[in-house]
Amino acid sequence: MPRGANLPAIAAFNDTVVLDAIRRSGDGMSRVELVGATGLSAQTVSNVSRRLLGQGLIREAGKQIDGPGKPRTILQLEPRGSYAVGVHLDPTVITCVLLDLEGSVIEHVRRHSPVSGDPAETIAVAVDAIGDVLKRSGVDRSRVSGVGVAAPGPIDVGTGVVVRPPLVPGWNDLHLGDELTAATGLPSLLAKDVTAAAVGERWRDPAGASGNFAFVYYGTGVGVGMVLAGAVYTGASQNAGDVGHAVVDPGPDGALCACGRRGCYGESVRPYRLVMQGIRAGVLRAPGGAPVPDGVDLDLDVDTVDELFTALTRAADDGDAAAAAILDRSIRNSALYLSNLAALLDIDRVVYGGPSWARVERRYLEQLPERLREIDMSILTHPVTLASSSVGDDVAAVGAACLVLDATFSPR
Amino acid sequence: MPRGANLPAIAAFNDTVVLDAIRRSGDGMSRVELVGATGLSAQTVSNVSRRLLGQGLIREAGKQIDGPGKPRTILQLEPRGSYAVGVHLDPTVITCVLLDLEGSVIEHVRRHSPVSGDPAETIAVAVDAIGDVLKRSGVDRSRVSGVGVAAPGPIDVGTGVVVRPPLVPGWNDLHLGDELTAATGLPSLLAKDVTAAAVGERWRDPAGASGNFAFVYYGTGVGVGMVLAGAVYTGASQNAGDVGHAVVDPGPDGALCACGRRGCYGESVRPYRLVMQGIRAGVLRAPGGAPVPDGVDLDLDVDTVDELFTALTRAADDGDAAAAAILDRSIRNSALYLSNLAALLDIDRVVYGGPSWARVERRYLEQLPERLREIDMSILTHPVTLASSSVGDDVAAVGAACLVLDATFSPR
Repeated sequence: MPRGANLPAIAAFNDTVVLDAIRRSGDGMSRVELVGATGLSAQTVSNVSRRLLGQGLIREAGKQIDGPGKPRTILQLEPRGSYAVGVHLDPTVITCVLLDLEGSVIEHVRRHSPVSGDPAETIAVAVDAIGDVLKRSGVDRSRVSGVGVAAPGPIDVGTGVVVRPPLVPGWNDLHLGDELTAATGLPSLLAKDVTAAAVGERWRDPAGASGNFAFVYYGTGVGVGMVLAGAVYTGASQNAGDVGHAVVDPGPDGALCACGRRGCYGESVRPYRLVMQGIRAGVLRAPGGAPVPDGVDLDLDVDTVDELFTALTRAADDGDAAAAAILDRSIRNSALYLSNLAALLDIDRVVYGGPSWARVERRYLEQLPERLREIDMSILTHPVTLASSSVGDDVAAVGAACLVLDATFSPR
Repeated sequence: MPRGANLPAIAAFNDTVVLDAIRRSGDGMSRVELVGATGLSAQTVSNVSRRLLGQGLIREAGKQIDGPGKPRTILQLEPRGSYAVGVHLDPTVITCVLLDLEGSVIEHVRRHSPVSGDPAETIAVAVDAIGDVLKRSGVDRSRVSGVGVAAPGPIDVGTGVVVRPPLVPGWNDLHLGDELTAATGLPSLLAKDVTAAAVGERWRDPAGASGNFAFVYYGTGVGVGMVLAGAVYTGASQNAGDVGHAVVDPGPDGALCACGRRGCYGESVRPYRLVMQGIRAGVLRAPGGAPVPDGVDLDLDVDTVDELFTALTRAADDGDAAAAAILDRSIRNSALYLSNLAALLDIDRVVYGGPSWARVERRYLEQLPERLREIDMSILTHPVTLASSSVGDDVAAVGAACLVLDATFSPR
């Protein structure tokens, strides 16, 4: 119940209530149906509709004849009435999408992240990508309600700052929100990459909006976005989803983590670590080709890690036993983490995605369900199903754009 | 929006809407205020009020003079208009409370759980406890809307069955709901103990209703109830909160778990395991007094474990270094788990309670915050505060009764 709100605020709120009702209806609604659905008076619905029609956010779409009375005009969303940009900054790839008001992807571009990791360069690439989707789509900037940015956490949502991502030291205190707004003239909104991915998946997947699932985001590292009781869960500071230091492989062979422990989940599965294991096992050739002594970690740039990770997964797919053993161990470790996650949150669905996912997808889908069954300590009262993102590689960018549509057009 | 509901269903729904608005108001509301708060018509509010007054669920409490018009009658909740029983079945103690409509505890009794663990005996004690709170309070059974039961999971909420609690083998397939309803004539509702505890804590603690917190339930084992984004989170099958097999102490000295791994969180902190460590360290005397060879676990009944756990905590409090070392290690292990939980859920508050909590409370409150600070891997963007349950030992029973009030009187 809005208390003490002034009139323009109430009008804006009512606009979003009506727009939201029309959006959720799918096929559109008559003004009479809107009165029933929103609890607003007929006069208010009439005023709001006129305003939304004038703004080009809805359209009149034919008449509905229903009984002996006057035919009713159906009001539908005007998908091209407003747009949102979504940008996903990953250390290896920058994805940019343009969504219309219905949430359909109108245009998308993908750019290599600068290998230097330099923040100014990174923002320049993102700004260029935003310009490019707008130019290609022919959509006027005035029709774009904002830019949603997905980035590695931890983030400060209030100020739009990336605080200190553990695996991307160059992005410490990156003022993403301000910089993108200054460069594009568009309002911006920052979200953690795993949260944005969960938002994108929930938007597209009809089952997502009602259930509970974890979105395992596999990129430079691993993180988890959560949809709990039908809603995206973000936590006290919007930084939910850090899973890096849960211990899953504590033996003497477990990957040594920066925290000093062995077998942390994040370290046990991140591509850099698997690539280093591949080099030591002789499956991959280190840049320069020199042998790498035990306990020494090479300083590899993100592109090299990405190429070597591709080589490792290909070798395993081609039957190389040592490469397969490295990946299979990371799948076993993932299963152990996911069994604990599923027991804690009582979820029955895990969705995988993120920039590193496609290369291991087949192997995970083949092995992970079996590994989960082996681990199940009779705790779970139901099985856990596993799926790949129904949105695909753009999922975090799509989710970031969804957040803009939501912030602009959802009643609150 | 209720769709296609028949008239009696709508009337019942409107009753709960009005009752809920009066309940939340604290001091009561006039009929005019109820029209504004509920969106119902003046006529409907008048009809509903008459019905609720007739049922004795609300009362007229004086007039409010507000401007030149007619003084308005204030409607308040009649706390003694309805009651709910809450029962908490723990392997060592059975707690039973009677709550009034406002959620105040009118009466409570505590009984020893049968040492045999026999389900029929356990239910008989629970039924006797229910009869006792009703007799002592003088409340007529017809005024009691139901019995809420908190029990160890996993549970089947739909059928009211305790499925197969890992630490209470005697309670496998215990048809708690049916048995209690048959014995008391009252409708019953089953909840997992950790969930009920979170419900009880959220009800009493004003901060709980809006924030995120984890309720660590420390009893025969350890489990976690969650309040996320202000709501109690229960999961897909109402079994959220199993944390037993997260690895926290994997070294060769870590407690060996039934799952085959070392250092699972549940095993590392449960009183039985700490008591066995105390016996081996010579701090405690095993029943019979014979030495216990390494790797052999004694078959101790729940009462003996409970007494020995009390002795262990007292020895530590009295300065016994070996006893202190055992407890301090379990606190260190708890900190490791909680740091991962806080990073996953981005929570800034952890509340502790449950039957084993009071004996270790002082030591945890002294040490755990410091252990958490040591572990923090710069992941958390905010500190985690630690508190004891504001409800105390009855928290799970109170929560179970709250669920009955909620199921009966909350609009849905």
